[in-house]
Amino acid sequence: MSAATLASLFRARSVALVGATDRSIWSTAAFANFERLGFTGRVHPVSRKGGLVHGLPAAASCAAIGEPVDAALLMVPEGAIAEAFADLNAAGIRNAVVLTSGFAEIGEAGARKQEALLAAARAEGVTLLGPNCLGFINYADRVPIWTTQPPLPVIPGGAIGIVSQSGATAGFLAAFAQRQGIGLSYQVSTGNEADVNVARVVDFLVDDPATKVIGLFLETVHDAPLLAEAARRALAADKPIVAIKIGASETAARAAEAHTGSLVGDDRVFEAVCRQLGILRVSCIEDLVFTAGLLAKVGHLRDRRLGLVSISGGICEMAADHAEANGIAVPRLAEGTKTALKDILPAFGTANNPLDVTGGAMLDPALFARSLPAFAADPAVGLVACFMDVPDTPEEIAGYRGTIVRQIGEGFRAAGKPAVMLSVMARPVTEAGRALLEETGIAYLGSGVLHGLGALGRAVAWAERQERGLPARAAPPAPATERPRSEHATLDYLESRGVPVVPMRLARSAEEAVTAARELRGPAVLKIASPDIAHKSDIGGVLLNLSGEEAVAAGFERIMSAVRLAKPQATIDGVLVAPMRAQEGVELFVGVLRDPLWGPAIAVGLGGIWVEALRDTAIRLLPVAPAEVLEMFSELRGAKLLDGYRGMPGIDRQAAAEAVARIGDAALALGPALASLEVNPLRATAEGAEALDALALFEEEG
Amino acid sequence: MSAATLASLFRARSVALVGATDRSIWSTAAFANFERLGFTGRVHPVSRKGGLVHGLPAAASCAAIGEPVDAALLMVPEGAIAEAFADLNAAGIRNAVVLTSGFAEIGEAGARKQEALLAAARAEGVTLLGPNCLGFINYADRVPIWTTQPPLPVIPGGAIGIVSQSGATAGFLAAFAQRQGIGLSYQVSTGNEADVNVARVVDFLVDDPATKVIGLFLETVHDAPLLAEAARRALAADKPIVAIKIGASETAARAAEAHTGSLVGDDRVFEAVCRQLGILRVSCIEDLVFTAGLLAKVGHLRDRRLGLVSISGGICEMAADHAEANGIAVPRLAEGTKTALKDILPAFGTANNPLDVTGGAMLDPALFARSLPAFAADPAVGLVACFMDVPDTPEEIAGYRGTIVRQIGEGFRAAGKPAVMLSVMARPVTEAGRALLEETGIAYLGSGVLHGLGALGRAVAWAERQERGLPARAAPPAPATERPRSEHATLDYLESRGVPVVPMRLARSAEEAVTAARELRGPAVLKIASPDIAHKSDIGGVLLNLSGEEAVAAGFERIMSAVRLAKPQATIDGVLVAPMRAQEGVELFVGVLRDPLWGPAIAVGLGGIWVEALRDTAIRLLPVAPAEVLEMFSELRGAKLLDGYRGMPGIDRQAAAEAVARIGDAALALGPALASLEVNPLRATAEGAEALDALALFEEEG
Repeated sequence: MSAATLASLFRARSVALVGATDRSIWSTAAFANFERLGFTGRVHPVSRKGGLVHGLPAAASCAAIGEPVDAALLMVPEGAIAEAFADLNAAGIRNAVVLTSGFAEIGEAGARKQEALLAAARAEGVTLLGPNCLGFINYADRVPIWTTQPPLPVIPGGAIGIVSQSGATAGFLAAFAQRQGIGLSYQVSTGNEADVNVARVVDFLVDDPATKVIGLFLETVHDAPLLAEAARRALAADKPIVAIKIGASETAARAAEAHTGSLVGDDRVFEAVCRQLGILRVSCIEDLVFTAGLLAKVGHLRDRRLGLVSISGGICEMAADHAEANGIAVPRLAEGTKTALKDILPAFGTANNPLDVTGGAMLDPALFARSLPAFAADPAVGLVACFMDVPDTPEEIAGYRGTIVRQIGEGFRAAGKPAVMLSVMARPVTEAGRALLEETGIAYLGSGVLHGLGALGRAVAWAERQERGLPARAAPPAPATERPRSEHATLDYLESRGVPVVPMRLARSAEEAVTAARELRGPAVLKIASPDIAHKSDIGGVLLNLSGEEAVAAGFERIMSAVRLAKPQATIDGVLVAPMRAQEGVELFVGVLRDPLWGPAIAVGLGGIWVEALRDTAIRLLPVAPAEVLEMFSELRGAKLLDGYRGMPGIDRQAAAEAVARIGDAALALGPALASLEVNPLRATAEGAEALDALALFEEEG
Repeated sequence: MSAATLASLFRARSVALVGATDRSIWSTAAFANFERLGFTGRVHPVSRKGGLVHGLPAAASCAAIGEPVDAALLMVPEGAIAEAFADLNAAGIRNAVVLTSGFAEIGEAGARKQEALLAAARAEGVTLLGPNCLGFINYADRVPIWTTQPPLPVIPGGAIGIVSQSGATAGFLAAFAQRQGIGLSYQVSTGNEADVNVARVVDFLVDDPATKVIGLFLETVHDAPLLAEAARRALAADKPIVAIKIGASETAARAAEAHTGSLVGDDRVFEAVCRQLGILRVSCIEDLVFTAGLLAKVGHLRDRRLGLVSISGGICEMAADHAEANGIAVPRLAEGTKTALKDILPAFGTANNPLDVTGGAMLDPALFARSLPAFAADPAVGLVACFMDVPDTPEEIAGYRGTIVRQIGEGFRAAGKPAVMLSVMARPVTEAGRALLEETGIAYLGSGVLHGLGALGRAVAWAERQERGLPARAAPPAPATERPRSEHATLDYLESRGVPVVPMRLARSAEEAVTAARELRGPAVLKIASPDIAHKSDIGGVLLNLSGEEAVAAGFERIMSAVRLAKPQATIDGVLVAPMRAQEGVELFVGVLRDPLWGPAIAVGLGGIWVEALRDTAIRLLPVAPAEVLEMFSELRGAKLLDGYRGMPGIDRQAAAEAVARIGDAALALGPALASLEVNPLRATAEGAEALDALALFEEEG
């Protein structure tokens, strides 16, 4: 539904420029862009004063245009926006792009004006992009409603859709892509996102046939659930999303608040969402453009075992280091390949992966055409990256440097495996260079080693994520009918939801405690049961390892008197009796929290110092499947401890993962009033997992 | 001494080109370079055939030149090298640059030829650069003995000395620097390093007046002690070293072996050496050039609190995230600064750090000249980074984009604090752009946000390291007279060297054990004392927490019989009796090892799982001062545990650091035959540190 709405904006065939004037650089640029980009629809300058604007007779109002108009670009001052909207409505225009600033980004007063603006748009069903945005360019259909000069010439066949909350950054991304010879399908500046937000544009681009890769610049996330859903659809559609999200630092968070009035949200949760949904997070313009460019050029990498080729041993080695740092396998060559290459390479060369074709290729460029197919034929190589800069000028292209590139192109074609050429150092691609690439059919990035291998690593990670797929989402759990208010009730509740829980009895007398301990067998743990006491140990409310009836009975009395002394007002349900567990295994921490943007999320970590001192946890949005929990385990810095240590066996990861997934489902079933649910510890051993302690907290009900 | 030798090579005033021919691209390029770079000395083509070469009459031999020659470039085939060397000697030429390949890089046979070559050079006191190198360019004195075309035009006043084991990579580094408008003082390709190696060139450059920053590309390290010493001198001379060292990955290590026959060494040790000596390690050409370029342009950053400025809120936020990731403080502005800026900025702007001067600066570039001084005047700002691209063409420079840069230049001058302009995205600097930068006096990097803040972070780290200085090196410890062969002897030895050691008695009978335990008070630990038994616990050789005379006496007998049963052949010195220590505090692992390249090094980690499962250790070359050990503690991933946890007090870091430093000195005193010395654990508490167990191992003596 929203996608259909956006199509009528992004594919507008007639546009009104409201507030058009020859005196404004924005208006002048916007008008010129229609011709620059070859817009074939109709453009109507609208100015209250009428007269000639941008060389055309201006209508005094939208209503006065006298024919249907698909979209209006509003460039009037903030004070004239209400009137302009009334005119829009009178003219029946259903799409508005608002350049004007002075809304939510300037604080409380502006936020109120923005609400009024949105109300005016909603009243008549107008789709509103902005305010405080630069507009959009649909390169695929040549529709530019954009208020600065875009980078020219346009690279044809662009397949990357850029969506940015910062208009200037959208421009920088587009400029960098153009300088690198990488084409775009869309660039959209969403500004303050009163109505259309990044999530909605992503949702649209997932279905856009021209767009193969989506690139995002985010300061905050409005409508996180829609973005998550769109990201799931993008993954299923084999359409990668590459995203910069600022706000990892406190300073940036403060700056973003000043910039657009946005809260940036918890960075660790965003990072977790990216892992979970296969969004490739980067931190700079270069990595966004190179990663998106690579994905657009080479597509899904089915075989990801990398063969590296260069004329320099030094570059080969640097590239190998970066490949490993980015998680890409660089396999050894088979003996047969080495033999074949030895006949091709100069005497002082070595047949290896990475392959140093040696400086001899400067004298004999055909070395590339001969060695690349032999190299790529190796059964262990699935993908080839060859380091060579595309020359800049027609003179260079006519010389040996052009010859080398042509020989590489020939080698790539004969190799018959996916192949990419990367520059040795970051550098732009000129028009002449781009023509040579088109002639030779080479997929090329002017990225240098660092950005190039980074982009390859992300493409590899993405292909793996895409092939693994997302777990099917189970039906939401049946809502719980009661809220567990105590440790005992919470453990009972978890058990009712299929979470393995330590056996436990509530004893109201020493006698009941003795009976319970006898039933449970072996040494016992006694804990005070009270909804009012959080830190039980601190007040003498816990006794461990009690053996025998006398010890248990005495323990019951000791706990009751200690607690009554320390907390005379507390409601006391009794004393919980549980079997004492051996020290073996690992204690896990499992916590469910509600993120203000993304909703319920689950954190898993190793208990004790790992969570408390080192904050080593992995996070996912709920629900989680056991397969996702296994991924969370692997992310922990202390993950190796799950595999056992000094003769202790490793834990049953699958059983622990299932317990965690069920805890997540149990938390979801408690509904939106659940503030937090903590299981600490979930004891995991080679035999299984078991919740030893748990507590649920709820939002105060109004 | 070596520096003096290299000066006569690098500042040669007359050069013989041995094997010169018009048919070789190397010879042609080498000859042309003398003119291209404005060499004012004499060049002599030498060719056995005589005749005209490169337009000059060629001498048939060096001896036939008939005048003194400072250096010869040898471009003859490998088979003609011996003869060429004989000719060199006959002519009395004392410096040789050998382009020829086919030596150690091709394997064992080549290595033997290289030994012969070195012997020939040494016999007559010839300084030898190469073989298998491209030569060098001394830009400062315009001496180019270099065999490919260097990037032109030369950027004047270059202050970066590049030294690379890979010739092609030296060329790539020089080409990238030139494209970025960054000048070099030297570029040196050391090739196989038969004689002159990177360490010697660094040693030379530390004293070279034209060189302010040294950039290295390393595959391996020959003469590690000299490199360490040169790095210490560079730090003292305020001359930063920026280094790429490949070999972090196994694949790169394998490739380097194929490329130059070099072993890359233990990457963790090299990383530790960089930390210890203030070498800034980077992983790509871009980061090397941008970091060295920044250091050459802005010098030592005395006040490192960063103010960020851009016309885009998005770039401000990205830059703030990268600043924090690189350890740079971005302080808040004082109220006075905010008030001053509010009068300058447009109404919709916000006075903040980072400062978004807003897109208004495109219409009113003087915003920069007005706001930069007010911003930099803030007492919390010590350094300003402003994001703006330098335009490429004279047309752009004549337009508003040139005006903006000039206004920034004016703002920088008025600001009176160190300031740098960074491009928004990585891009080259054109000749026209460089002229504008010279005109405006702006220090600029075309680095983009990622590389620019990375370079700033390294410059900050380097200035901190330089100001902290290296600890004065104490006199080497007096050599030990005996080698401790057992745990007991090692602990005794450590104690004699001032290491705090747990009190311990050697008991030869149950009676002696009882007496020892009585003297030591409290519960006792008994351990078998034998030079032949490494894993004492595994065979019942350790008993903990024995209280009372009976228990100690029985314990002695139990250990003796258990050990006799398990190891009937072992020499048994008796049983060690020590006081049982409480569980409080932290167990540290301290290990001394001998690195094949760098010599004795010390590793410190948290004991148990941290060292054994997570391999979390910090490493330094010996000797170490306590201040350096404190830095090692901070590097540990588990460092927080040293500060105490759940009410347990933190350890006395200073006392523990002193104990570690003394263990290092004690290890050094045992001389080069020491293979390893391990103290595990060194128990550290709030009260001090104490070695509980130790073992020294020695190389087998031949």
